[in-house]
Amino acid sequence: MATKLSRKLNMGMVGGGPGAFIGDVHVKAAQFDGGVDLVAGCFSQDPGKSKQRGKELFLRPSRVYASPLEMIRGERALPEGERIDFAAIVTPNNSHYAISRDFLNAGFHVVCDKPMTLTLDEARKLQALVKSRPRQVFALTHNYTGYPMVKLARDLVRAGRIGRLLKVVVQYPQGWLIDRIEKQGAKQAVWRTDPKQSGKAGCMGDIGTHAANLAEYITGLKIVEVMADLGIVRAGRRLDDDGNCLIHFNNGVRGLLFASQVCVGELNGLRINIYGEDGSLFWRQEDPNDLPVYNRDGTVTTYRRGTGAIPPLSPAAAAASRLPFGHPEAFYEAFANIYRNACATMRARIEGRKPSAIELDFPNVDDGLRGMQFIETVVQGSRLKRWLRWVN
Amino acid sequence: MATKLSRKLNMGMVGGGPGAFIGDVHVKAAQFDGGVDLVAGCFSQDPGKSKQRGKELFLRPSRVYASPLEMIRGERALPEGERIDFAAIVTPNNSHYAISRDFLNAGFHVVCDKPMTLTLDEARKLQALVKSRPRQVFALTHNYTGYPMVKLARDLVRAGRIGRLLKVVVQYPQGWLIDRIEKQGAKQAVWRTDPKQSGKAGCMGDIGTHAANLAEYITGLKIVEVMADLGIVRAGRRLDDDGNCLIHFNNGVRGLLFASQVCVGELNGLRINIYGEDGSLFWRQEDPNDLPVYNRDGTVTTYRRGTGAIPPLSPAAAAASRLPFGHPEAFYEAFANIYRNACATMRARIEGRKPSAIELDFPNVDDGLRGMQFIETVVQGSRLKRWLRWVN
Amino acid sequence: MATKLSRKLNMGMVGGGPGAFIGDVHVKAAQFDGGVDLVAGCFSQDPGKSKQRGKELFLRPSRVYASPLEMIRGERALPEGERIDFAAIVTPNNSHYAISRDFLNAGFHVVCDKPMTLTLDEARKLQALVKSRPRQVFALTHNYTGYPMVKLARDLVRAGRIGRLLKVVVQYPQGWLIDRIEKQGAKQAVWRTDPKQSGKAGCMGDIGTHAANLAEYITGLKIVEVMADLGIVRAGRRLDDDGNCLIHFNNGVRGLLFASQVCVGELNGLRINIYGEDGSLFWRQEDPNDLPVYNRDGTVTTYRRGTGAIPPLSPAAAAASRLPFGHPEAFYEAFANIYRNACATMRARIEGRKPSAIELDFPNVDDGLRGMQFIETVVQGSRLKRWLRWVN
Amino acid sequence: MATKLSRKLNMGMVGGGPGAFIGDVHVKAAQFDGGVDLVAGCFSQDPGKSKQRGKELFLRPSRVYASPLEMIRGERALPEGERIDFAAIVTPNNSHYAISRDFLNAGFHVVCDKPMTLTLDEARKLQALVKSRPRQVFALTHNYTGYPMVKLARDLVRAGRIGRLLKVVVQYPQGWLIDRIEKQGAKQAVWRTDPKQSGKAGCMGDIGTHAANLAEYITGLKIVEVMADLGIVRAGRRLDDDGNCLIHFNNGVRGLLFASQVCVGELNGLRINIYGEDGSLFWRQEDPNDLPVYNRDGTVTTYRRGTGAIPPLSPAAAAASRLPFGHPEAFYEAFANIYRNACATMRARIEGRKPSAIELDFPNVDDGLRGMQFIETVVQGSRLKRWLRWVN
Repeated sequence: MATKLSRKLNMGMVGGGPGAFIGDVHVKAAQFDGGVDLVAGCFSQDPGKSKQRGKELFLRPSRVYASPLEMIRGERALPEGERIDFAAIVTPNNSHYAISRDFLNAGFHVVCDKPMTLTLDEARKLQALVKSRPRQVFALTHNYTGYPMVKLARDLVRAGRIGRLLKVVVQYPQGWLIDRIEKQGAKQAVWRTDPKQSGKAGCMGDIGTHAANLAEYITGLKIVEVMADLGIVRAGRRLDDDGNCLIHFNNGVRGLLFASQVCVGELNGLRINIYGEDGSLFWRQEDPNDLPVYNRDGTVTTYRRGTGAIPPLSPAAAAASRLPFGHPEAFYEAFANIYRNACATMRARIEGRKPSAIELDFPNVDDGLRGMQFIETVVQGSRLKRWLRWVN
Repeated sequence: MATKLSRKLNMGMVGGGPGAFIGDVHVKAAQFDGGVDLVAGCFSQDPGKSKQRGKELFLRPSRVYASPLEMIRGERALPEGERIDFAAIVTPNNSHYAISRDFLNAGFHVVCDKPMTLTLDEARKLQALVKSRPRQVFALTHNYTGYPMVKLARDLVRAGRIGRLLKVVVQYPQGWLIDRIEKQGAKQAVWRTDPKQSGKAGCMGDIGTHAANLAEYITGLKIVEVMADLGIVRAGRRLDDDGNCLIHFNNGVRGLLFASQVCVGELNGLRINIYGEDGSLFWRQEDPNDLPVYNRDGTVTTYRRGTGAIPPLSPAAAAASRLPFGHPEAFYEAFANIYRNACATMRARIEGRKPSAIELDFPNVDDGLRGMQFIETVVQGSRLKRWLRWVN
Repeated sequence: MATKLSRKLNMGMVGGGPGAFIGDVHVKAAQFDGGVDLVAGCFSQDPGKSKQRGKELFLRPSRVYASPLEMIRGERALPEGERIDFAAIVTPNNSHYAISRDFLNAGFHVVCDKPMTLTLDEARKLQALVKSRPRQVFALTHNYTGYPMVKLARDLVRAGRIGRLLKVVVQYPQGWLIDRIEKQGAKQAVWRTDPKQSGKAGCMGDIGTHAANLAEYITGLKIVEVMADLGIVRAGRRLDDDGNCLIHFNNGVRGLLFASQVCVGELNGLRINIYGEDGSLFWRQEDPNDLPVYNRDGTVTTYRRGTGAIPPLSPAAAAASRLPFGHPEAFYEAFANIYRNACATMRARIEGRKPSAIELDFPNVDDGLRGMQFIETVVQGSRLKRWLRWVN
Repeated sequence: MATKLSRKLNMGMVGGGPGAFIGDVHVKAAQFDGGVDLVAGCFSQDPGKSKQRGKELFLRPSRVYASPLEMIRGERALPEGERIDFAAIVTPNNSHYAISRDFLNAGFHVVCDKPMTLTLDEARKLQALVKSRPRQVFALTHNYTGYPMVKLARDLVRAGRIGRLLKVVVQYPQGWLIDRIEKQGAKQAVWRTDPKQSGKAGCMGDIGTHAANLAEYITGLKIVEVMADLGIVRAGRRLDDDGNCLIHFNNGVRGLLFASQVCVGELNGLRINIYGEDGSLFWRQEDPNDLPVYNRDGTVTTYRRGTGAIPPLSPAAAAASRLPFGHPEAFYEAFANIYRNACATMRARIEGRKPSAIELDFPNVDDGLRGMQFIETVVQGSRLKRWLRWVN
């Protein structure tokens, strides 16, 4: 019989050294709801930096490691309840696979940043490994699906609120790579523009995958065909920094997807329009608490995020929301929702109970594989300058 | 020497019978600034309807005609100053060419609705005719370029405010054809979905041409290559009601263009993002008085339409604006700007003086030809499912 | 029996010389719908300027007059159908009364700009005169009530859509008097800051009256008590350029009203929130085509202006709308709606039929009197620094 | 010499039992940046509920107390580094004073929710106590001043960006008390509408104080005179649920302030317009990442929150921001900023160093006293129905 786990989960981190952007987001998001303690880490390949970061985070020095393998050994030596329950992997793409594999093989749950691996082949192998270890959780931080109003959008589509789907337009413009800041050593930019660390795609891998994942998440459809037009806007780069795609979903739904990192003045402009036979909906990451739904009669019904007794939000959207209406939640809280569900599922596994549908609502290894297939499809297709069936 | 014309211009109309949408817009727009009098018309092929409309407009019965040719004869018989100076042609596309040709050949100026003709061949012939009669004005009502903030956008681009252009995203969703209202006899819908009256394209001809025209107007670039994906969303239609395109402009600028008439809840959602090396700008037809420009430093500068002594607006934008800041202008006023400039050019022709650059700022026969080429390119390209060079 | 008038109405104008802002608005608004011809005018006290303006407007020289009295004489000498049917009075406030009175006494209909008169006493006298001549129309251009969505707001309140009213917040900030441009001869500013031409109030007379009128129009309530705090922000002025008020309506509804002409960056920022027991609504002049209604359940329903068969708009709002959804209408069209209804009522009077409720929906002499009472109340109350009952 | 504290601060909480809204916000906000551990609490007067909440928070049972005094005793018995460093007090207003006093007297730092006390007299006594213990921190969670763009607004005003201030309009509408949910046992509503627990004011105490605090924080001005009009909209209540005020600041700046909890559809609508001689600015809590500044020339410059090298944000705003542009932050992060600065100041006190200006930027006992004076002034003034000087 299941026994409720009466302690916080213990988290270890790989990557996320001093000054890292996404590593710190993981730290805050994981601990946001008070159910997780960061207790160990290997924050950098440079042991000095790793120690420095461990100190900033008030970790015990004995739990700060010089390499992932050392960390695995060290943590396995500790008793359950003290050792980490899961590892969060926030390194550049090229080490995601090996580190995930090793932690999984050592029996730990894993939360990994996206894109999931460096290559499609690695992704397939990781999927097989995860499928072979059904009691361990593998979560991927496609964090935008953690937003409550994204969940509401999905649930409205599922419930038929906007009828049969007809068209999808998903846009993801950013502007932070307008200059070649990788040449000035900007950490993020250096590895994201380097094929050895990032893989075959730049912009399309970093944010195009988010756009595709969001579209599939909300619509419940799958992209089946793509006509891609990737480009290198800033001369000298080796990976795309901008890309436009025509897309076909199953069920004959047509759409557009674009992502760019050279759109000056666009910040983190992920937005999506979903058009259906009986209505349409629109969501924008920079204004995440509102969800306008366009009605057939010309009016617009705007749903607004918030807890409370009033019915409008779906159960999943309500569960993903902590504050009452009008008290905005944003990026961290959405990210924390991925962790909350993934950790609830870990708890279920530890406690020996079946996780609920809401607990299982986090991106997993299948989403990760689709992301790698998306990258492969758009890169090949753009080279061939023609429509390409989804690469499996 | 030029003598100033001390009377209003006399306008005749072909088309725009009782209940017509765009015909009435032309009537109001032409007369908006007090320089034009509608004095004659052939409003319908049905003489009864034509008379009814003439009566609604308080025209003298003798100036209401049963056919365009009768109108030409009737008007030519009147003395200059009494007879019409120009004809506004607002019939379905299939008669634009013949009527325009006849009025031009009879010595009248012409204002014609878009798309310019039924076929590309007609467009070429009309262009040749117009070029051969340089003292006559031929204006095409691509009305969205009449908006003051569109002119400001063009002028900011010209002035280098956003630097070298990098990317263009132009969207034109509408939702009014979500149902097959053409089967219920909705006048607009009947002819717009009928290849005999509309030509080779439906949605792309009606509004895709506006989107392409707007993009070229603001950027000063030309589309040189298109990858189109047109579709018929509502089964049974013979013309596209939805279409997505990847586009290449000259100078290597990439972009996306989509137009649709089945996007439920979208009203008249023309909007354009223009991304440059040093900034970006965004304009939206449904919120036409504001022009946000995104700066490199993360701030946004929003220009707001209005007359007045303060410098921000360019001369062309200021000239296209009648009211002070905060007193919104909208669709009619933008449409009236096309007429105002076209009529100022007619006056210049009549007075024997050279029109100014601002007076000449209205869409002309070259824009009309490009529109027909756009239709040809996207229709062919979509059929071939590949990138297609602009059809000339 | 009523005979339909088969000609346009003839309009004369008093005021609105070269460069005048509001005079030109009246000219365009009156003629917008094709039912009115401007045929005569006395545009300035300076006969040269009057002639110049007449020429710009292509009037016959014989119909351009040197004084209102000369105009009355001249027009009365012409046969019905040729002479003016009504006079539009767009002079500074201090001559509204005398000119209105004279045209009314001469049998003409009158459209007058607001505030209605220089003094409350004049307003009472004008009201008595208008009441004594029930077959003549007297319209006042509180133009903001001409916006379709304002009419919809009123109709939704009337229909109980937001329940019993609880609170009203009406704001009218402008910024154009931040500098003492009256000292540089800016025409508008000179007379609006001069008590001899404007009366007891500056900002409160010019725009505070609009705010009060709008609140009463939409709510159907009457202000019964005011606590005013007027101020002169720019030293040296003799009239208020800023003012804040607490207000009490009948039925115990409380509210706030403020108006200012020194709010830098505010353009023509009239906006109103109306809070009811079952919902709330919000309208903003600078974004006039949308009307968001806040529902009890946390959602917002936004109504959007447009013609068409779909039910949402009330009959009065639909009648005030010319273009389909998504084709924005704005300031001129709202202004034209005042004229359209006033002129339809004139036609009804001429034709001997009873005007409909929709035709009678324009601001009249009673609104004008309330405006003058509002000015009196806030000026007195601010001086006394206490709550003051509405001055009758 | 100062020694850097190499551990997290230990936090204890008083109040915030199961289901409490604001208690949980404090828990998350305090721990957000990884510098604080919640280790002890007395969460409810009901020991069972206190234990339940302690369990939810994974506290050791020995650190969950039955009363504040027991907690003080228990914690003082523990060694430094293990015992709490500070107490967060999130009980209803009527116990703020006694609990704060007791923790302060026992040598602990205190973070207290607002309004600070039940009565003005208590506030004066608490101020005296805090002033007498300069090494202890007393922070008050006027959380809205924690928003980065509020800090930027203050810093722009200080830097003269909008010139001499002329007018302030601050609005704080909510709608959650439209029904008498206190009769159905809604916990928040029960105590907030009860004079014994809340004090002399309802809405004005709960959120009017936030509005006044925000206005004074951004402008650097002090309210010196108020004309209040409080009301009980829902019959049967004993405290105001709605209130409107005219206000005078020092330096002759006039303004309006309103707060309401019966504005249906308004969620947490705190917003403020600050008008100056050379520009104006506007901030809205529900859209907190943008700060539009209206310029003299008619343009608007919108500043957008985000970290990064680009200059626009002031040091205090940058320090209050964790994520790059376009990754929105919201309510929790702003709340966490109050904690971050208060805790940094506690660390400085413990370490024996002088806190920086940025660390000291949190609401303190003086703000708390002004809040209680505000309540006293508006309650008295509304009763007297006249302008009232600020009650000291």
